[in-house]
Amino acid sequence: MKAGKDIALANKETLIAGGPVIAPMFEQYGVSMLPVDSEHSAIFQCLQGIPKGGVKKIILTGSGGTFRDVPLEEMRTMDPEVLRKRSTTHPNWDMGAKITVDSSTMMNKGLEVIEAHWLYGVDYDDIEISIHPQSIVHSAVECQDTAVIMQMGWPDMRLPILYALSHPARVPADLPNPRDGRDFGDWWKGEGKDGKLTFSKPDLEKYPCIGLAYKAGRRGGTMPAILSAANEQAVELLLTKVIDFLDISVVLEKAMDMAEAENKVVLEPTLEDIVEADRWGREAATLVSKTLKTAA
Amino acid sequence: MKAGKDIALANKETLIAGGPVIAPMFEQYGVSMLPVDSEHSAIFQCLQGIPKGGVKKIILTGSGGTFRDVPLEEMRTMDPEVLRKRSTTHPNWDMGAKITVDSSTMMNKGLEVIEAHWLYGVDYDDIEISIHPQSIVHSAVECQDTAVIMQMGWPDMRLPILYALSHPARVPADLPNPRDGRDFGDWWKGEGKDGKLTFSKPDLEKYPCIGLAYKAGRRGGTMPAILSAANEQAVELLLTKVIDFLDISVVLEKAMDMAEAENKVVLEPTLEDIVEADRWGREAATLVSKTLKTAA
Repeated sequence: MKAGKDIALANKETLIAGGPVIAPMFEQYGVSMLPVDSEHSAIFQCLQGIPKGGVKKIILTGSGGTFRDVPLEEMRTMDPEVLRKRSTTHPNWDMGAKITVDSSTMMNKGLEVIEAHWLYGVDYDDIEISIHPQSIVHSAVECQDTAVIMQMGWPDMRLPILYALSHPARVPADLPNPRDGRDFGDWWKGEGKDGKLTFSKPDLEKYPCIGLAYKAGRRGGTMPAILSAANEQAVELLLTKVIDFLDISVVLEKAMDMAEAENKVVLEPTLEDIVEADRWGREAATLVSKTLKTAA
Repeated sequence: MKAGKDIALANKETLIAGGPVIAPMFEQYGVSMLPVDSEHSAIFQCLQGIPKGGVKKIILTGSGGTFRDVPLEEMRTMDPEVLRKRSTTHPNWDMGAKITVDSSTMMNKGLEVIEAHWLYGVDYDDIEISIHPQSIVHSAVECQDTAVIMQMGWPDMRLPILYALSHPARVPADLPNPRDGRDFGDWWKGEGKDGKLTFSKPDLEKYPCIGLAYKAGRRGGTMPAILSAANEQAVELLLTKVIDFLDISVVLEKAMDMAEAENKVVLEPTLEDIVEADRWGREAATLVSKTLKTAA
């Protein structure tokens, strides 16, 4: 960044944890962050045609993960081993286990809210999450005049990566559906599952990680770094069968409470403070996991 | 236009009939046309963020009109008086009788294809119509890299009018749903009819006016002026009970055939040729209507 080079951002943690240090450098060094994840690329694409001051709200879409259609009551009575297995299997995207669990808890969407806040300078009150099971609309922007601009396409990481490299141009590309080879132009015909989009409000009781992410984002300073690190550790504890799926948000809430109790939140952090917050967050998740009933 | 002033375009016929004369003046006088109909405003809004050469395809959305869910076979057996009455009642927009009939035949969408061709310099092969019953997405643009940008909002003419006046800015406005006063921000919650969008391919046998509009557009010259004028006259003949609803496309096809037979298509027309084409188109519609079985 200090060399004045634009950066294609593939790593969420850079901004989620490092936002207070990194974001001011955008202006200082005249550098742009070109997001390559599908949601922030979608927002970035929508923002191309909206002048400064024209944004009212950002709508981040998320599939709702593997438990979208499973009521919370049912999840509470399910075999923890079944929950653990299902939480690592994503309906629309082929991804690694960690990121798939984050999709199941919707923590990925919560962390994307924090990332959007830093990338686009939008208040937390003006960032909304919408559950969109089809993963066709990758996010949207509501303008001050109530018009909404959305970006859509197949769920395929090649498109946001291409746009990060070609921006602001739109270069001709043949990017058929990775699963069945169809062109996106055929989607409008409405055959089979095509041509249908639905959106709904996430249930914050079912997805408590969303509320924790907003809380950490609004608290600011090193709290998002602590939450993000604690979450990575909590997922690791899930995958190694130390905690159950429904324990994840409990661990994170307790880790955030511990951070407050022990005065670990640095409001104007240095890079060193953020590195320390990351270390502390992981340790805190492990510590609080030992206080859970389910942990042996 | 000769004074170099941008023009807010509320009148479709200007470009549909006058395209060959008007469109070259955009460049000649450095003038922009700011569309105020919801579909072309939507396309214009989407295009703001897409550099020249980046457009692959335009997708014009239309509700499908009042007969969207009525099979063609059923329409053929319905009482012509019932068809006439229903063709003037629109499900989503409150409009006049002429424009509502154009929505029922989808000729409005066909004429918008011609308008989009002139406004945005896009080939007819690259303009597609999609049936979208909810009238929430007002149109979309597919980029060369397969990404699609859509514009959406309540069906409310105040929004495109505001944008034509404020462009390129997005000015704060309170534009709740004209029917029930809800903010568009609530749409994402997915309650009731909200949060659902569907799209499908129009049945060209059921909506023959779409095919006629593409044919007239591709033929060029004064043919779109003839079709547009003949259509206005045909709707008038429907409202005055001279012809039936299903006769409209028959009248228009015969009028276009007559234009070819009598060499009435001027390929590089003057404004006078267009005025004459308009007069002739109306006359031709009346003439051919007399050859129909249903006409007394």
